[in-house]
Amino acid sequence: MPGLIECVPNFSEGRRLEVIEEIVRAIGQIDGVSVLDHSSDSTHNRSVVTFAGAAEPVVRAATAGVGRALELIDMEEHQGAHPRIGAVDVIPFVPLGGTTLEECVDLARRFGELIAQRFELPVYLYGAAALRPERTRLADIRRGQYEAIRDEIGTVPERFPDFGPHRTHPRGGAVAVGARKPLIAFNINLATDDVAIARRIATTIRESSGGMPAVQAMGVLLERPGGRDLAQVSMNLVDWERTGIAAVVREVRRMARDAGTDIDHCELIGLAPTGALLEVAADTLGLRDFTADQALELRLARDR
Amino acid sequence: MPGLIECVPNFSEGRRLEVIEEIVRAIGQIDGVSVLDHSSDSTHNRSVVTFAGAAEPVVRAATAGVGRALELIDMEEHQGAHPRIGAVDVIPFVPLGGTTLEECVDLARRFGELIAQRFELPVYLYGAAALRPERTRLADIRRGQYEAIRDEIGTVPERFPDFGPHRTHPRGGAVAVGARKPLIAFNINLATDDVAIARRIATTIRESSGGMPAVQAMGVLLERPGGRDLAQVSMNLVDWERTGIAAVVREVRRMARDAGTDIDHCELIGLAPTGALLEVAADTLGLRDFTADQALELRLARDR
Repeated sequence: MPGLIECVPNFSEGRRLEVIEEIVRAIGQIDGVSVLDHSSDSTHNRSVVTFAGAAEPVVRAATAGVGRALELIDMEEHQGAHPRIGAVDVIPFVPLGGTTLEECVDLARRFGELIAQRFELPVYLYGAAALRPERTRLADIRRGQYEAIRDEIGTVPERFPDFGPHRTHPRGGAVAVGARKPLIAFNINLATDDVAIARRIATTIRESSGGMPAVQAMGVLLERPGGRDLAQVSMNLVDWERTGIAAVVREVRRMARDAGTDIDHCELIGLAPTGALLEVAADTLGLRDFTADQALELRLARDR
Repeated sequence: MPGLIECVPNFSEGRRLEVIEEIVRAIGQIDGVSVLDHSSDSTHNRSVVTFAGAAEPVVRAATAGVGRALELIDMEEHQGAHPRIGAVDVIPFVPLGGTTLEECVDLARRFGELIAQRFELPVYLYGAAALRPERTRLADIRRGQYEAIRDEIGTVPERFPDFGPHRTHPRGGAVAVGARKPLIAFNINLATDDVAIARRIATTIRESSGGMPAVQAMGVLLERPGGRDLAQVSMNLVDWERTGIAAVVREVRRMARDAGTDIDHCELIGLAPTGALLEVAADTLGLRDFTADQALELRLARDR
């Protein structure tokens, strides 16, 4: 599977499903890309599309998605709970298989320049692709959202885009283009409905409060109609090669037991890199010298 | 990964490495197949080649391997510890990904007919591809080995091949062609050097003595120069969807603890179906509704 790249554009439309279908179709009709998933949220009025392929088809498909979104979504009319800066709010490129993050950084910058020119759309580079350190975090780019950027992009130097015109696109606003490692959305449900325990564990393990590297976590109550509610440690593992699933589970189990409870079960939301799951198997079995190459289909996919 | 098939021919040559290299080259030069592994054993004087691809390339590559082996190996001169009936002793076809065992059965029969005709080589169908129930087990076909088949194939009806002439190939003898599910070679090393415990556990869990379905097991002593020897339960899991790694580990751990010891670590020999490893992860994490489609690269490979 040489040079595979995942792309996860977020679009500012989560209610008009026919619009989402049109955008997904524009992406999926490009030869050489697979649309892996798409989901829409009406509260956030936002949709996420996940697709993958080699670099060139992925660029063509992302370009097609941007083009269609700029035709179909008008930021002057968009409202939703999730912060956003444009019709296509954010486009991250993610390395899969043998692809490196650096390749995705290069691709994001090349793609950013391309769509800025093609669509006269201001582009901010973020994440590993950021050209300015203050644009690494999406939240910093999004401050004040679409409306603030529209009003300030022509006059406030901090708002000047990395590529494209110093004015927002008349319908589409602006876009953040970046590169990041694959993210694993992973929840651990505790055998208790005491959400305070989940919150305490989340606070202890998350990187932002000095916990485990590359872990984002919060404690929530998982309501289960007809069953007992469960306290949940809800996590994003943003770099599983630094902190993987097995390490997080071990730590959460230890703290849960200290608090007089235990792990009930875990949940994997959406897709995860196969390597992150194989690591759990290798850890459980105490396999030494295990490599993902011992997984037959992965090995084959790599060779093809 | 539509219609992928693995093929694992065993050749009666494990000493003249240049012969093995030539056979591997004949297989690997076919477009659309990947040679995943090959290994030779000089005591057994035997080599195993593992390759995979879609049905047609796999048939072409297996045919090329048979042709080369018939030129380079002479059964009249072959000696080795492992029972064998021909220059190419056995050719199993194994379903991968979305392929079914039935497809491999059809392929094995078609391939058997093809090489019988092309090379005037007697072919016995075995395993799931067997046409007669008494030929399901390889050991039954191999009874008396090459020498017995050479002497009886023309006159003893039980020895008549399923395809090809009622005489052995002048150099290559005969071949068994079949279909089987992927096999996992998996060892559990106990935290003791008391091999009697491993033997007792092996006897209890293996199918042949009424234990777990699709499990072959024996107890051996793993000698570790410079370290403590470990008692090992050495297994083949011949149908992991019936009895998987997690179930076997659980049972062996229970019995090891009953015997006052525990599992030290496990070993996976060679390749295993990715699904069998993901099952271990899902079992460990208590993931509900998990499917192998949540493993990103697998999902992608399936779509391509």
